[in-house]
Amino acid sequence: MAQYLTGLDGVFLALADPTRRAVIHRLGHGPASVGDLAREATMTLPSFMKHVRTLESNGLIRTVKCGRVRTCELDRERLAVVEDWLAEQRRLWEERTDRLDQFVTNSTERNTT
Amino acid sequence: MAQYLTGLDGVFLALADPTRRAVIHRLGHGPASVGDLAREATMTLPSFMKHVRTLESNGLIRTVKCGRVRTCELDRERLAVVEDWLAEQRRLWEERTDRLDQFVTNSTERNTT
Repeated sequence: MAQYLTGLDGVFLALADPTRRAVIHRLGHGPASVGDLAREATMTLPSFMKHVRTLESNGLIRTVKCGRVRTCELDRERLAVVEDWLAEQRRLWEERTDRLDQFVTNSTERNTT
Repeated sequence: MAQYLTGLDGVFLALADPTRRAVIHRLGHGPASVGDLAREATMTLPSFMKHVRTLESNGLIRTVKCGRVRTCELDRERLAVVEDWLAEQRRLWEERTDRLDQFVTNSTERNTT
């Protein structure tokens, strides 16, 4: 449980940056080299590499070096952890809303009979 | 667009903490007082108030003070911003997967005819 929470901390933190979210978005179209991604981010390679390392260390992307080119690709399972967490919260609110609806319906029926 | 991105930065940052996620989860069952939430978090009130302020300033919760009691409730729309962002990424991957499936199907058909 502690490990799961720590994982979520890192994933949310990694997503709290527009450059890193833009990388996730770009990699949704398919793998890309670090060089191409850095150019699209209009950022120097060393600055951009910090973002790549944050994304990689939190499991949101995988990188593979082939010769001089490092290629990045998404790890969708990691984003699914965030989706699962959000879905769980939504389930709770919706259950509560259903209960409130039921309560209002029952109260209205009692008052009209 | 910049404002939207800054909003997402703050929301993701606010969610990158287990205490704050636990508050979101708890408030899914309904509003609660800051005092009750702090007790459940086994935290002193001043320490807990920092988390409340982070959640409130990023629009994830609303608080209302009535007499000496401050009550918190969820603002679901703010979490919906995160859900929307994730849904957009998922749409991209799925479109790409569909295109890859189509490519493989077409290639297989070409090779077998």
